[in-house]
Amino acid sequence: MREQFRQEMKELTDTLVLQAQAASKAITGAAASLKDANLALAERVIDADHTIDMLERDIDEMGVSLLARQAPVASDLRTVVSALRLSATLERMGDLARHVAYVARGRFPKTVASGEVQELFENMADKAAQVGQLVAKLVETQDLSLADEIIAGDDALDDMHAKTFEFALDESLELSRQEIVDVILLGRYLERFGDHGVSVAHRMRFLVTGMEPDDEARAEIEEF
Amino acid sequence: MREQFRQEMKELTDTLVLQAQAASKAITGAAASLKDANLALAERVIDADHTIDMLERDIDEMGVSLLARQAPVASDLRTVVSALRLSATLERMGDLARHVAYVARGRFPKTVASGEVQELFENMADKAAQVGQLVAKLVETQDLSLADEIIAGDDALDDMHAKTFEFALDESLELSRQEIVDVILLGRYLERFGDHGVSVAHRMRFLVTGMEPDDEARAEIEEF
Repeated sequence: MREQFRQEMKELTDTLVLQAQAASKAITGAAASLKDANLALAERVIDADHTIDMLERDIDEMGVSLLARQAPVASDLRTVVSALRLSATLERMGDLARHVAYVARGRFPKTVASGEVQELFENMADKAAQVGQLVAKLVETQDLSLADEIIAGDDALDDMHAKTFEFALDESLELSRQEIVDVILLGRYLERFGDHGVSVAHRMRFLVTGMEPDDEARAEIEEF
Repeated sequence: MREQFRQEMKELTDTLVLQAQAASKAITGAAASLKDANLALAERVIDADHTIDMLERDIDEMGVSLLARQAPVASDLRTVVSALRLSATLERMGDLARHVAYVARGRFPKTVASGEVQELFENMADKAAQVGQLVAKLVETQDLSLADEIIAGDDALDDMHAKTFEFALDESLELSRQEIVDVILLGRYLERFGDHGVSVAHRMRFLVTGMEPDDEARAEIEEF
């Protein structure tokens, strides 16, 4: 019984790691598809999102089943509760990567924009991909020093998000209606990806230390 | 012990109802502030969001504490797990209402747009407010017949969301850069509010029946 419990707990955390890696791969692919107007890659990101959704379902089922049959306590309980919360956040991160890939696919064979606007997209997408990779590493290693790097990455995304508004509203910058729409949507998707990364960081801190984020940390998750 | 357990379960569900009512009030106020360029109302929605965040924290703490000390089973376990998931969704609905209020406040003393664009915003915000009210009623009464109404409301929001893109991209429609930005952002916020409403509907179905949403239902939550 005890051994089966440990085995099920391991399966739960392994599946969560798989989901985090899949979300990281999705945003990394989405960023690359944006940079090179790479249609095949954008398609792969879009198709792979289903896997991330199914991993959420698996984690939820395993978590609820563990609670129902094993009534875990202490750090095991925190692991299960955290897995249930993290699976939903990672699923949203996958959705946002898919949305970025949709935009890249929609503008193919062109890139989404050109000049400094395109450069901003690429930098923002690269930063989001970096956050995605840190999130996967944090879920895998539970090394909380990565949490601060994720929060710094999110801060950088917030700054670039503010820049997207400047571009969208700057009348001296010639942009088509489609480009204005893309500036706003890509900015929003990538900024939200960062927010979810911070949410993962706080939830992993809870998992490891048992400390819930304080009000200030909660407020930070969504500065707008 | 048993009586204390029932008391704590009641407190958990009561707090969840309070949070759902607060989210409903927020979107209803946001919709009204958009319609009349009502600054005071927009400010109230923005300020009240903190309460919704605090209710999420309370629900999370109560839920985790119940799991740790009482190891609830069957429908009590579903109630606790659902509360943990719903609190995060309701918190997001509150954030989205706040975002709508930010836009209304930002354009004061004008309305956000005029003519058919403003009319679309008002219809979309009214529909989102209706979804918010249905969500509060569903959480309160657990009457699953409301779930279908929520899903229908979300479908209507998706249709109006598609219309926001038509407006944003229609060169024959004179729009300022700010108006294009607002069309896209408000469309996105209100469409996402509907998605979260559907998510609540599915989670309430799980709470009442023990059935997890199937893959099709999960895919419906975010059609784009």
